Amino acid sequence: MNREECTLTDKIAVVGTGLVGTAWAIVFARAGREVWLHDVADGAVERSIARIETLLPALAEDGLLNAQSPEAVRSRLHPARSLAAALEGAVHVQESGPERLEVKRELHAEIDALAPPGSVVASSTSGIRASTFSETLDHRERVLVAHPINPPHLVPLVELVPAPWTAESVVDATADLMRAVGQSPVRLNREVNGFVVNRLQGALLAEAFRLVEDGVCGVEDVDAAIADGLGLRWSFIGPFETIDLNSPDGVKGYCDMLGDLYYELACEQADPRRWEAPLVERIEGERRAALPKEALAERQAWRDRWLAQIVKAKGAIREMNGG
Amino acid sequence: MNREECTLTDKIAVVGTGLVGTAWAIVFARAGREVWLHDVADGAVERSIARIETLLPALAEDGLLNAQSPEAVRSRLHPARSLAAALEGAVHVQESGPERLEVKRELHAEIDALAPPGSVVASSTSGIRASTFSETLDHRERVLVAHPINPPHLVPLVELVPAPWTAESVVDATADLMRAVGQSPVRLNREVNGFVVNRLQGALLAEAFRLVEDGVCGVEDVDAAIADGLGLRWSFIGPFETIDLNSPDGVKGYCDMLGDLYYELACEQADPRRWEAPLVERIEGERRAALPKEALAERQAWRDRWLAQIVKAKGAIREMNGG
Repeated sequence: MNREECTLTDKIAVVGTGLVGTAWAIVFARAGREVWLHDVADGAVERSIARIETLLPALAEDGLLNAQSPEAVRSRLHPARSLAAALEGAVHVQESGPERLEVKRELHAEIDALAPPGSVVASSTSGIRASTFSETLDHRERVLVAHPINPPHLVPLVELVPAPWTAESVVDATADLMRAVGQSPVRLNREVNGFVVNRLQGALLAEAFRLVEDGVCGVEDVDAAIADGLGLRWSFIGPFETIDLNSPDGVKGYCDMLGDLYYELACEQADPRRWEAPLVERIEGERRAALPKEALAERQAWRDRWLAQIVKAKGAIREMNGG
Repeated sequence: MNREECTLTDKIAVVGTGLVGTAWAIVFARAGREVWLHDVADGAVERSIARIETLLPALAEDGLLNAQSPEAVRSRLHPARSLAAALEGAVHVQESGPERLEVKRELHAEIDALAPPGSVVASSTSGIRASTFSETLDHRERVLVAHPINPPHLVPLVELVPAPWTAESVVDATADLMRAVGQSPVRLNREVNGFVVNRLQGALLAEAFRLVEDGVCGVEDVDAAIADGLGLRWSFIGPFETIDLNSPDGVKGYCDMLGDLYYELACEQADPRRWEAPLVERIEGERRAALPKEALAERQAWRDRWLAQIVKAKGAIREMNGG
């Protein structure tokens, strides 16, 4: 393989360099990929790279740069002077533009015209189906959603959601790339509202809001029930493995034992409710009593430090326990 | 305070020494309480204490015995030759008997007659309301549910659920005791089906089963979506703090942005479904392909080692990050 082919194979285009695109650039660069960043906003790419420069030392300390120096990772980040320059020779395009359908439509029309043959075009959108912005593209078979959880350089999950016309080989290639750069890809068989992550989160949130609205308990109580309770297991095994291990007869034994109770609960929970202003104000009030608004940004940084250290701890525990 | 009063104040009765009672005995003993264990089954108490003896060295290694030796904790465990001997002088009774209403009724009638004045009687039941077995007791105001997540010596959460006649002071005293022994108590204002923990878990499970039944994704995908995604944040902040930190404008900003989507999802999720045999068989099949039935017990031990190490890691991270 000569130098040019190697560069082609390794090149990733990150289009849109807000919080999500910036985190994606770290994911790809620390995995040895050459990353070209582009954003339509003046100075956005420079701000993104400057932000990454401030983040890399702490990531190195937490062992989250694959034993590379911040400088080595930084050297793989390249500002692109145009969308065309970002896309030229790229094998994978990660679009992380604004969450508005009309913006996605325009942006993907431009990408469609410029991305090289054989490349994959993935959108980071958390809620817009690829089919709604890719239908009329010339190369719509190479477009899919690759939705991360924020920030992807700390949280490995990425859900891959094909449009009806996305080629199977494109989903395969994206899953392979995601695994190769250390992410954990989950494949949806088809487009659904909210994808999988927000459907699961939404189900939990609906009940959380219901418990508070009905006066069963407070906001802090719900948060403790998860953070000091259910969330401990869910941080390394999912809900199915959790119930599988909660009965000597696995999932089947668990369902025999508790299926009726859960059906009763599901019936009680089958009243979809809008989160109306008075309830939202009440929850906002409980949160602001616990954390003043001016402390939000600092607490977000605290959360990211925690995430980094939980991920680091999981790596160490996995090594100790073989899996 | 003389020696006798001190002993009275410290004495805990653990009634029923299966998995849950055994774990409770560790919780109380490592916190310096004198624990008296009783079980109607021949040899159950001896087996429970023997089991604790095998668990203590690993807990000491993981820093989960409050810097005490296994021997010091072990020395606070006492087999009681009768229920009366277990309860005599106890300040708190933790009942962890079988999950059958008629058993709870009989057992709590006996406890009612024997527990000393001023003591609290807490049941570990995961689903039976205290009101259904305490109504006719002479001292029903001192009875409540204190439901742990298994195993409570690793998972701090305990939900406190009063019956309509449970005295406020009894809930207060139980919350104080739970905090004092290192647990994280959550108070429900009233009895609801499934309490809070299983209502939240049930909401998530209902959607997990739905996604698999509808062919959106597989069992492993749902588990990865949680264990590599949502569960990382939920292991140290709850669902409300999670969304609060996901918008520059806190919960209110988040709801303004995503409330409509979540309402749509709630409408789609408002079809309560029984977990019928074919679906359960399919999920059981996917789990057994990942983990043969004969490996379940070993995997449960693996899960408990993980839990211990996650709890240990959380302690260390909390110290590093001030909260």
